[in-house]
Amino acid sequence: MNKQSEQAVYDRQGFGKNLELAPPAGLLIVDFINGFADPEVFGGGNIRPAVEKTGKLLALARKRGWLVSYTRVVYAGDGSDANVFTDKVPGCLDFTETSELSQVVPELPPEPGDLIIRKQFPSAFFGTHLASALAMKGIRTLFITGATTSGCVRASAVDAMCHGFKPVIVEDCVGDRSVQQHEANLFDLKMKYTEVMRLEEVEALTSL
Amino acid sequence: MNKQSEQAVYDRQGFGKNLELAPPAGLLIVDFINGFADPEVFGGGNIRPAVEKTGKLLALARKRGWLVSYTRVVYAGDGSDANVFTDKVPGCLDFTETSELSQVVPELPPEPGDLIIRKQFPSAFFGTHLASALAMKGIRTLFITGATTSGCVRASAVDAMCHGFKPVIVEDCVGDRSVQQHEANLFDLKMKYTEVMRLEEVEALTSL
Amino acid sequence: MNKQSEQAVYDRQGFGKNLELAPPAGLLIVDFINGFADPEVFGGGNIRPAVEKTGKLLALARKRGWLVSYTRVVYAGDGSDANVFTDKVPGCLDFTETSELSQVVPELPPEPGDLIIRKQFPSAFFGTHLASALAMKGIRTLFITGATTSGCVRASAVDAMCHGFKPVIVEDCVGDRSVQQHEANLFDLKMKYTEVMRLEEVEALTSL
Amino acid sequence: MNKQSEQAVYDRQGFGKNLELAPPAGLLIVDFINGFADPEVFGGGNIRPAVEKTGKLLALARKRGWLVSYTRVVYAGDGSDANVFTDKVPGCLDFTETSELSQVVPELPPEPGDLIIRKQFPSAFFGTHLASALAMKGIRTLFITGATTSGCVRASAVDAMCHGFKPVIVEDCVGDRSVQQHEANLFDLKMKYTEVMRLEEVEALTSL
Repeated sequence: MNKQSEQAVYDRQGFGKNLELAPPAGLLIVDFINGFADPEVFGGGNIRPAVEKTGKLLALARKRGWLVSYTRVVYAGDGSDANVFTDKVPGCLDFTETSELSQVVPELPPEPGDLIIRKQFPSAFFGTHLASALAMKGIRTLFITGATTSGCVRASAVDAMCHGFKPVIVEDCVGDRSVQQHEANLFDLKMKYTEVMRLEEVEALTSL
Repeated sequence: MNKQSEQAVYDRQGFGKNLELAPPAGLLIVDFINGFADPEVFGGGNIRPAVEKTGKLLALARKRGWLVSYTRVVYAGDGSDANVFTDKVPGCLDFTETSELSQVVPELPPEPGDLIIRKQFPSAFFGTHLASALAMKGIRTLFITGATTSGCVRASAVDAMCHGFKPVIVEDCVGDRSVQQHEANLFDLKMKYTEVMRLEEVEALTSL
Repeated sequence: MNKQSEQAVYDRQGFGKNLELAPPAGLLIVDFINGFADPEVFGGGNIRPAVEKTGKLLALARKRGWLVSYTRVVYAGDGSDANVFTDKVPGCLDFTETSELSQVVPELPPEPGDLIIRKQFPSAFFGTHLASALAMKGIRTLFITGATTSGCVRASAVDAMCHGFKPVIVEDCVGDRSVQQHEANLFDLKMKYTEVMRLEEVEALTSL
Repeated sequence: MNKQSEQAVYDRQGFGKNLELAPPAGLLIVDFINGFADPEVFGGGNIRPAVEKTGKLLALARKRGWLVSYTRVVYAGDGSDANVFTDKVPGCLDFTETSELSQVVPELPPEPGDLIIRKQFPSAFFGTHLASALAMKGIRTLFITGATTSGCVRASAVDAMCHGFKPVIVEDCVGDRSVQQHEANLFDLKMKYTEVMRLEEVEALTSL
């Protein structure tokens, strides 16, 4: 079945409705840390351009006063918190509090007061206090950028929706080592879980 | 980039290692309910053959004494539990406790003592007591079947892994309205989150 | 050590600060179901008067347009969802979807659109979608009533706080089979987790 | 009503049944960090003797090969993760990764491979990956020690039970700034949520 007739099935079954975005908004930057920007580690594909575009989105977020949050992959370093995910992808265990791999990329510097979430799983929400922090501030809409689209971005977006926040994937601000998987996952996200917008569309939103 | 060179990237970065499966095992049947078996509602694609294959897997699970659990999509019917997911896919709200849509398909009858999880989100684990029930019984490995591969099956598999269980997707027992999305999601699952096995491989496992 | 010198320790260590309550507000009525109102089942103590006072609070909530939510204890009836809690208190397993024990008391009738949370654990939040539903509506302050103060009310209040909501225990609207445990738990709640107010104080709040 | 007739109510209503403890076991040491051992900060009451007794329990745990886990209260230090709990108890915010207050007491030294859980809420399970880590290892029984009985110990014990683990409070290994609240909370825990045993009873268990 080709892409067009496939879309027709989703349309006929009523998927892909739009979310009514409401303030206040937050920005979540998923795993834009050195190890995911480096093609020799977990990077590649369209991740680098997504980092650059996210610089503009971050500036917008600060200008509008959105809550800014980042995730970092951080393991203990002694194997004590190895888990099923690290059984599948053992290289994750090299990401420790002080390793270069796990520092936020220099292009997107955190500021004091930003929320820094250390995580050991794909989703920014699993085993962390992110949902609590967003709910406490009454956040309704969550713009999501980062890497990878088919991994931690998707897992975080699905969980954002489950926790009651309206997720918006900024599609030119998310990237993946595999451009094919990037595209396939954007399709699922748009049909079932989130809004998908380009940076310029986000810039044009005046109500948030 | 073609599929082959893409796989090479994942291999080089160390993705897709195997999980060491350990007993005791459980079986999770995700949303094999009438509404997902019917192409006029949320079904289509390769869902029907997956239901049929799951009948064999269910028989195996009962023979081996695995904990059997099912999910059903169940909303209140008065809109009180509408959520961001139903904003994207409003048709979900028709699935209520007594609607025909939300009953387990007749081919896979639950038995007394099976765990029936009512859910309002993609993942079988979100907002439910499934993780607790599995942990209480010391379950280590969770075979997962159901619909759809790109939706509730994937979300449940990712969460299974996060909660500490080793997920095994039985690939001919999961289905999707879109065979393309089915394939794309199996790739992500295999590379990052789960084992992916065919029914006959599961039948050949003697240690579980 | 007597109560007065004990309070001095908490004061000196900086416990018991006040929460700044913010709109919008919600009301959570915990387990005011027949089985907890009946001294022959799980009732007794000061539960009955708390039910009556809650009638007034519920009227206030409806007048002000607060989100109203109820919990009911509901188990499957076939033992499939027995858990560690029911190992400690086996009588819980008699509370099923259709049992008289598990219906909301007639004095506090739910209306269409109220959130009805079925739970298998002390906290209204554990294994349920309550936190998600509150976050989706941007709820900031949660008034809590119900039974028992030392059990499901406390567990729900602690979780409300953890999930980012400002909990207010309405002290003459919560009750317990043991008045001693009611008092001891109100002390913990006030020092560490929630506001504690009387109904007339809540009525006097004009900002919510 | 006196204590005796109160106990009769709980007995008649069927509370306080025993849990069947099953291997494998783990040990959870809650917040035995300098700030909770110091009466000038959050300590006092019977916390000091509980630390000393826990030394013996820890030795037993290591001898028997139980999974050992610790919690530490750790906030970011810039106010970014202030929450409703720190609104009630602002002094918590002084506990940071490097502050003396938040280091495990010298009497109970962690070893490489022990699980160290950083938390921002009362429960060791809230916003952390503890439940996942225990489930992954198939832990069935969790011995709990630490401070305070009426605070983080109780919250952790209730959540342990909810997550499907059988909690055992080792009563001479838990302490509280208030001995009255210690006693009141042990009563609730014993009646509804956990086993309560003395260290010598734990030492006598041969099956774990």
